[in-house]
Amino acid sequence: MRDYETVIRLFRKMGSFCLVSHMQPDGDSIGSLLALGEVLVKSGKRVRLFTPAAVPRKYAFLPGSENISAESGGWEEDAAAVVLDCSDLERTGYFKEMIARSAVVINIDHHVTNRRFGTVNLVDPQAAATGDIIFRLIKAMQLELTVSMAECLYVAISTDTGSFKFDNTTADTHRAAASLLESHALNPGMISQRIFDEYPLSYLLVLKKVLGTLELFGEKKIAAVTASRDMLEHCGAQVDELDGIINYTRNIEGVEIGIMFFIDRGGEVKIGFRSKNIDVSALAGRFGGGGHPRAAGCRLKGAYGSIKEQVIREALLAVVSPPDDLAGRRG
Amino acid sequence: MRDYETVIRLFRKMGSFCLVSHMQPDGDSIGSLLALGEVLVKSGKRVRLFTPAAVPRKYAFLPGSENISAESGGWEEDAAAVVLDCSDLERTGYFKEMIARSAVVINIDHHVTNRRFGTVNLVDPQAAATGDIIFRLIKAMQLELTVSMAECLYVAISTDTGSFKFDNTTADTHRAAASLLESHALNPGMISQRIFDEYPLSYLLVLKKVLGTLELFGEKKIAAVTASRDMLEHCGAQVDELDGIINYTRNIEGVEIGIMFFIDRGGEVKIGFRSKNIDVSALAGRFGGGGHPRAAGCRLKGAYGSIKEQVIREALLAVVSPPDDLAGRRG
Repeated sequence: MRDYETVIRLFRKMGSFCLVSHMQPDGDSIGSLLALGEVLVKSGKRVRLFTPAAVPRKYAFLPGSENISAESGGWEEDAAAVVLDCSDLERTGYFKEMIARSAVVINIDHHVTNRRFGTVNLVDPQAAATGDIIFRLIKAMQLELTVSMAECLYVAISTDTGSFKFDNTTADTHRAAASLLESHALNPGMISQRIFDEYPLSYLLVLKKVLGTLELFGEKKIAAVTASRDMLEHCGAQVDELDGIINYTRNIEGVEIGIMFFIDRGGEVKIGFRSKNIDVSALAGRFGGGGHPRAAGCRLKGAYGSIKEQVIREALLAVVSPPDDLAGRRG
Repeated sequence: MRDYETVIRLFRKMGSFCLVSHMQPDGDSIGSLLALGEVLVKSGKRVRLFTPAAVPRKYAFLPGSENISAESGGWEEDAAAVVLDCSDLERTGYFKEMIARSAVVINIDHHVTNRRFGTVNLVDPQAAATGDIIFRLIKAMQLELTVSMAECLYVAISTDTGSFKFDNTTADTHRAAASLLESHALNPGMISQRIFDEYPLSYLLVLKKVLGTLELFGEKKIAAVTASRDMLEHCGAQVDELDGIINYTRNIEGVEIGIMFFIDRGGEVKIGFRSKNIDVSALAGRFGGGGHPRAAGCRLKGAYGSIKEQVIREALLAVVSPPDDLAGRRG
């Protein structure tokens, strides 16, 4: 709790704050930014909100999101910089230099890998989301939780836990959700529909095309799909609409490794790996990539056909044991 | 709480119980059956567990699921019948007659439409799941919550709320989940992966085929897909693997009504409707069907082509207003 108190003291002492979060904004970064922004405004402070990218359309319904700027022009040199949900300053993109010049940097995050780059660091890896830390700050400051704060923090926690499905979900996460729902009779159905279950038509067209490329290898322990820039253009889709489609391969019963090949421009092929039990970061590492044990990736230059052959060969080695039992298993 | 006390008194007084739940078993029916079964066994009672269908494979990991019988042979005439998660006795399928002959029928359910068919009725529509009621019973009985009870009840609550996404999710639901997770350090990631994110290969093959039939009507306010018995056979899929695929249509941004046509045997076409705001139960009603405002359905006999034309015409009337502004909007 000492870190909380230090941050609260700075919030009370200083008059002006620039809040910034990470690239590829998500529900936790946007929700935390808006909720803490409102807290400071309500405390009579001068506040500016930034992200190094536009707010994704699905979070535009959050109250106050129109006040978040992707332009660094409005940054105030004398303000305290509050960096939210960023494990390091690289994640703040083109705001990095402004933050580095700030006299006071308040680093609020829940990533275990946080580099403690702030003058003050409130890093709590037990929290399922940065929004959870903001919620605790509001309670510790004994401030009234407004309906807009509750909605933003519910979105933050819900998105970072995949609607309470991921392993970072704890009893405390559910208790925070209970308080947030209760405070202002939020509508979890409407919020979840917006953040989890709505997508542009182009997404469904891409999904259909990508699923059409499904291939199985190694006694159906490996499932792979292939996407490409051409496919995206044909469907009018953005590259981030491919996010999550790889999970369709890993989620098949019996499949141990799911793979997505993305044929990008300039002869580059990006490869994503997902697994149930196998350490795919080691597999990605064999191609110069990396990541987490269950979610990893790499990039290779060359012809798709031969890259695919190499990658599938290594994936087969990872799933089939003993390794000298491989012959004839492919198909 | 008086209903809870009455049920607890019966649990204490009687020696033998036959527990039964509904057709098309789900996480709530199986989870509630197993948790309450364990409670009664631990209280020294003679207990038998039944469902009018085999336990779906995805719930087979729940401890004790191998003790659930789909055979009515083991039913005991002198036992108290405990009916779980059934709004009426039709839902118990071929167990209905045995239950009707029982001297004591304990009806435990959370559906607002429950017909109160029991000699004792513990019906709580505020509960998000029947598992939530069992959880409260365990607390009221001051029994120890075992790890298997916690796991079964977590699955019950999680499935019936769509992992805390649906509008039946309340602060109390989250508090129950917090208690369950805390009691035995359950692993929400593993459980959620099993109940939400795993499917047979045949499902993905069917999904791919069904998405391939996507059509849009009425300025993209209506999205429809078509499945058939032939498709299922071709993919080696069961009819229940189509469940949920209709949501892919409704979830498209801008779509107001999602429709799935299922061309069954014997010249029958089943039609499912899903919506964001429009009352599709009224739409289904125009074809002799019914359901809920956001999820409804009907069955029609005849040729798919002309049925589809009629249904789309009525759906267009439902989404486009004023109704005389329809001409030329299709396509």
